[in-house]
Amino acid sequence: MSHRDFKIAPSILSADFARLGEEVDNVLAAGADIVHFDVMDNHYVPNLTIGPMVCKALRNHGVTAPIDAHLMVTPVDRLIGDFIEAGASYITFHPEASEHIDRSLQLIRDGGCRSGLVFNPATPLSYLDYVMDKVDMILLMSVNPGFGGQSFIPGTLDKLREARRRIDASGYDIRLEIDGGVKVENIAEIARAGADTFVAGSAVFNAGRGEDPHRYDSVIQAFRDELARA
Amino acid sequence: MSHRDFKIAPSILSADFARLGEEVDNVLAAGADIVHFDVMDNHYVPNLTIGPMVCKALRNHGVTAPIDAHLMVTPVDRLIGDFIEAGASYITFHPEASEHIDRSLQLIRDGGCRSGLVFNPATPLSYLDYVMDKVDMILLMSVNPGFGGQSFIPGTLDKLREARRRIDASGYDIRLEIDGGVKVENIAEIARAGADTFVAGSAVFNAGRGEDPHRYDSVIQAFRDELARA
Amino acid sequence: MSHRDFKIAPSILSADFARLGEEVDNVLAAGADIVHFDVMDNHYVPNLTIGPMVCKALRNHGVTAPIDAHLMVTPVDRLIGDFIEAGASYITFHPEASEHIDRSLQLIRDGGCRSGLVFNPATPLSYLDYVMDKVDMILLMSVNPGFGGQSFIPGTLDKLREARRRIDASGYDIRLEIDGGVKVENIAEIARAGADTFVAGSAVFNAGRGEDPHRYDSVIQAFRDELARA
Amino acid sequence: MSHRDFKIAPSILSADFARLGEEVDNVLAAGADIVHFDVMDNHYVPNLTIGPMVCKALRNHGVTAPIDAHLMVTPVDRLIGDFIEAGASYITFHPEASEHIDRSLQLIRDGGCRSGLVFNPATPLSYLDYVMDKVDMILLMSVNPGFGGQSFIPGTLDKLREARRRIDASGYDIRLEIDGGVKVENIAEIARAGADTFVAGSAVFNAGRGEDPHRYDSVIQAFRDELARA
Amino acid sequence: MSHRDFKIAPSILSADFARLGEEVDNVLAAGADIVHFDVMDNHYVPNLTIGPMVCKALRNHGVTAPIDAHLMVTPVDRLIGDFIEAGASYITFHPEASEHIDRSLQLIRDGGCRSGLVFNPATPLSYLDYVMDKVDMILLMSVNPGFGGQSFIPGTLDKLREARRRIDASGYDIRLEIDGGVKVENIAEIARAGADTFVAGSAVFNAGRGEDPHRYDSVIQAFRDELARA
Amino acid sequence: MSHRDFKIAPSILSADFARLGEEVDNVLAAGADIVHFDVMDNHYVPNLTIGPMVCKALRNHGVTAPIDAHLMVTPVDRLIGDFIEAGASYITFHPEASEHIDRSLQLIRDGGCRSGLVFNPATPLSYLDYVMDKVDMILLMSVNPGFGGQSFIPGTLDKLREARRRIDASGYDIRLEIDGGVKVENIAEIARAGADTFVAGSAVFNAGRGEDPHRYDSVIQAFRDELARA
Repeated sequence: MSHRDFKIAPSILSADFARLGEEVDNVLAAGADIVHFDVMDNHYVPNLTIGPMVCKALRNHGVTAPIDAHLMVTPVDRLIGDFIEAGASYITFHPEASEHIDRSLQLIRDGGCRSGLVFNPATPLSYLDYVMDKVDMILLMSVNPGFGGQSFIPGTLDKLREARRRIDASGYDIRLEIDGGVKVENIAEIARAGADTFVAGSAVFNAGRGEDPHRYDSVIQAFRDELARA
Repeated sequence: MSHRDFKIAPSILSADFARLGEEVDNVLAAGADIVHFDVMDNHYVPNLTIGPMVCKALRNHGVTAPIDAHLMVTPVDRLIGDFIEAGASYITFHPEASEHIDRSLQLIRDGGCRSGLVFNPATPLSYLDYVMDKVDMILLMSVNPGFGGQSFIPGTLDKLREARRRIDASGYDIRLEIDGGVKVENIAEIARAGADTFVAGSAVFNAGRGEDPHRYDSVIQAFRDELARA
Repeated sequence: MSHRDFKIAPSILSADFARLGEEVDNVLAAGADIVHFDVMDNHYVPNLTIGPMVCKALRNHGVTAPIDAHLMVTPVDRLIGDFIEAGASYITFHPEASEHIDRSLQLIRDGGCRSGLVFNPATPLSYLDYVMDKVDMILLMSVNPGFGGQSFIPGTLDKLREARRRIDASGYDIRLEIDGGVKVENIAEIARAGADTFVAGSAVFNAGRGEDPHRYDSVIQAFRDELARA
Repeated sequence: MSHRDFKIAPSILSADFARLGEEVDNVLAAGADIVHFDVMDNHYVPNLTIGPMVCKALRNHGVTAPIDAHLMVTPVDRLIGDFIEAGASYITFHPEASEHIDRSLQLIRDGGCRSGLVFNPATPLSYLDYVMDKVDMILLMSVNPGFGGQSFIPGTLDKLREARRRIDASGYDIRLEIDGGVKVENIAEIARAGADTFVAGSAVFNAGRGEDPHRYDSVIQAFRDELARA
Repeated sequence: MSHRDFKIAPSILSADFARLGEEVDNVLAAGADIVHFDVMDNHYVPNLTIGPMVCKALRNHGVTAPIDAHLMVTPVDRLIGDFIEAGASYITFHPEASEHIDRSLQLIRDGGCRSGLVFNPATPLSYLDYVMDKVDMILLMSVNPGFGGQSFIPGTLDKLREARRRIDASGYDIRLEIDGGVKVENIAEIARAGADTFVAGSAVFNAGRGEDPHRYDSVIQAFRDELARA
Repeated sequence: MSHRDFKIAPSILSADFARLGEEVDNVLAAGADIVHFDVMDNHYVPNLTIGPMVCKALRNHGVTAPIDAHLMVTPVDRLIGDFIEAGASYITFHPEASEHIDRSLQLIRDGGCRSGLVFNPATPLSYLDYVMDKVDMILLMSVNPGFGGQSFIPGTLDKLREARRRIDASGYDIRLEIDGGVKVENIAEIARAGADTFVAGSAVFNAGRGEDPHRYDSVIQAFRDELARA
């Protein structure tokens, strides 16, 4: 797959929530493609972050880039509806968190959004067996969600290769996203393993924090340079 | 109680989450006393709002006013710890949402915060029987939490009077807060029933939205004028 | 309260589910006033009975008498909506089974039905403290719900008297229903303690089962004779 | 597999619950083989239907055909016991709904019933890996359970072929049932993919509703004609 | 109540589980009256201790003294059955942990055991309103269950007085037990407030641990001396 | 694999809990290698057994052999921490009981213990796909956990062979343990299928119960003799 369209998706969990609109504007201006929006409910993961009202506020603020809502919640169906109304572009969820995965995927598409499944580090890919025609994105977690400060789990590279094989065999247009421990040092190797969409949390926002906003540019440019070599 | 110290506590649920720091700064500059912070987890109530990271961001932004975290979540103990670290001043929770109410109240005080219990419209006050020495705030809901667009439930006035009696009889210094449908038109009557702390959501922020910020002043001043007559 | 309007409400749990329309027709023709409809979900009580589709089928069959849906389920809000659509007249639920009692009561009335709370034998009446203006019926269980073959718990008589006092003091028009172990032998005493609506399960349907349908008449008439003496 | 014994299993969810015994008699007289009995508990799926007492009433009414109880409930073990006592012939459940699948399958067989697993549209067949010797039926859902008005999910045809391969490889006598969107137009194709037992809900009962009962005959005959060509 | 029959009930949570039979023998020989058996399930409280098999082992070992099983578990009904079979004398549970309190109390008595309710520090006594004829013991927690190292909560003295009034008014023979922070220094005051049964955990077993077993005698004797003065 | 190091792991569930230290001493003296410690919480399985305090007591008593804590509980993370502190050597859990399997496995190793996954009879081995580098033990249940008196499920032999293939292919040093119905009669066949660690409950302890302790020796020796032939 020689011409993949690589996308950088900074996670707003690392942004400054006191001036979120400005932070998102800056990171998009610096070249980011997608706003990665991490939703935690203190049940599926041990933390509570931000919900649909914050997503809606970004849309009202004028953000037009894709917003990629990663639901680390259970159950998922009520929040799927809320995020459709709040203007999300992608809505992804964990298969273990929905008793009716096919139905949840349909809810997302029926709401005009793109749908996806997220795989924890140990979750088998067999959940994909009968839904390849219903997902627009597959997100592999390369750390355990809900906690900060973790490193990229090396075994995820093989899992990326297996997911890439499934996508290519299916013939469907499905993005393969990776989340956790992505850095300038490893993004090329991750891309070679098959990922085309890269969540980068602290790597992006911390670079620009308290500095001149041009720092965002340089980190994102560094990602792009590495990806060009992948 | 002739010299009660009335406090206005705008709920940031009605603020603009894309520029939250600025919104909070403005409303405090306009005379608000307390930042009311509504935390919903999509389990105790059917909505997910904002969590401890947003509270922390307000502190980092420079907010020094009291932040009053109202936890509409279950279970409560893990988030109590998170909000202590995030800089909350008050942490209140619903007695039905904790299996060990006394322990949860102690966790809050042990963390250096002020503790409180929140009563849904139908919840009996008997949950107060053995904890008057452990609460710094009693919050009566005058609408059902988790939904917008509701009016003040009239029966709450009697419940306020009963709560006021319990507070006065106890001899403890406990704030009596009211949340739901508080407006310029009814705030005096609510104060006369015994409330001394007033959550006002849309009434405050909507007044100033998209307008010159002086509008915040006029709404809060209108509240104060009414309270002066109470 | 000298002129109470006593109502007999046979529970269809004791009817023949293979010809339910006919059974309900017969028991109403024999003088019953209300169809008592017991809904169990295998979570709030250890049994699963019948849901809204069966209620709807009775309406489609031509039943016009009040249908009194007693929800022994948790959570309650989704089924409240289903029973409103299915044509229920009363919808009652257990306060322990709803985290937002006031909201659930409002859902029922907003749907055009009459609302009520049900009290298990050990449940305190303090759940009524702040909702007397929102209930049309109070149902006291005189057995533990979810199991058959139990006798009337004697302590319920005192609880009936207390509930009657609360109703009379409120000035509202609220029915006081009793469910469990009601028989010809004790119905007069139960009525004297304050009940005005009487669920009778096996006592009614078993009397008529496999016999000529006139037997329904004689049991219901026996109840009425006893009530006339109460 | 040229001599499969095709079975038609109308779902009584589409029958008239006010005269269920008569409806079931008619559909069996019209040639149906199995009574498909859909049990929903408002937890595993968002609806509550009918429980063991209704099953028992059909047996008391004189129904001798196999009753195939499809448990859309969680947890499953208590209701398994109830349906054994109520006279069910087959009891099937969803593997995600039981923490101890092997034990639940054994409970069913120990009670003298035939056991089965049900697969939601997205559920992988790997749950079959170690229980082929313990199932008498595999039910593939070709719609998402708990909702009406859905169409047959096309991907189910491949899943049927995979299930058929597993059954044939096992050497065990296991029925392969399909539920959801089965119509005269597609039953032959479904049969060719490997199904031998066909749940048909509204297609059967709605055909006969409010018409002369001979209509049941013609629909079921139309199914049989198509199956003969499969 | 001048002639109350005071009982000392050491909690075996403080005993040595590697030689539990011997420990229990020693503490009973030293004058303890009741074996207090703390059951935690890691759901109702954040700890998992010991279950019915350990209770049964004590009976098989020859312990004939009353065993008082305090269930800090939810749900309670299945373990009630297990502890009846394991030879418990008293079985107590928390009202918040059972959806059907009256039924659970009946299960205990039907199994030939004595029944009781346990009140957390903040739990109102209104749960007693309609079950005084069904409890043989009321246990007030003077610390929050599930954690060690807590001190006696002073407000419990008033709660003891209120519980004592309820018991005396009822005319029933009901023990009033206290658990948490009971020491030689405060046992007399606790007794004067109305308690007649005293759980003492570390105070008893730690006294004898690793020492000559006569130490048990002296601690229990010290308790008795204080009680004689109460 | 000709030189496997076979380990015998008696389950202390069959020991005498009134003198557990002595029982464990005896069985280790008789040649057992590992103490198998069955933890049930009455939620994941319908029984409550023993928790971390009992494990700690064995360490305090002087047991130095490996203690293999099999957690039949959900959720698992809090008890993992407790068993690390209590001195467990191995901590294993069921993948269905943890929403974050990789994280739970890391917690165990971060605590200095060896980690493992347990597979119920019907659980597919696909949960191993991405964690072979993080497990030190794979435990296959050959009966359904939580109940006594079951026989070895024959299909487990094939599952053992598949697990053995996965272990050998991985190149990691992972023990393959079997639990349920292991007896002198079948241990050789089980070993040939790939197991190297054998939980034996009643077979060991019942042999020695009430007899001279040399009986333990003879049972364990009989196991070893069979294993030598495997």
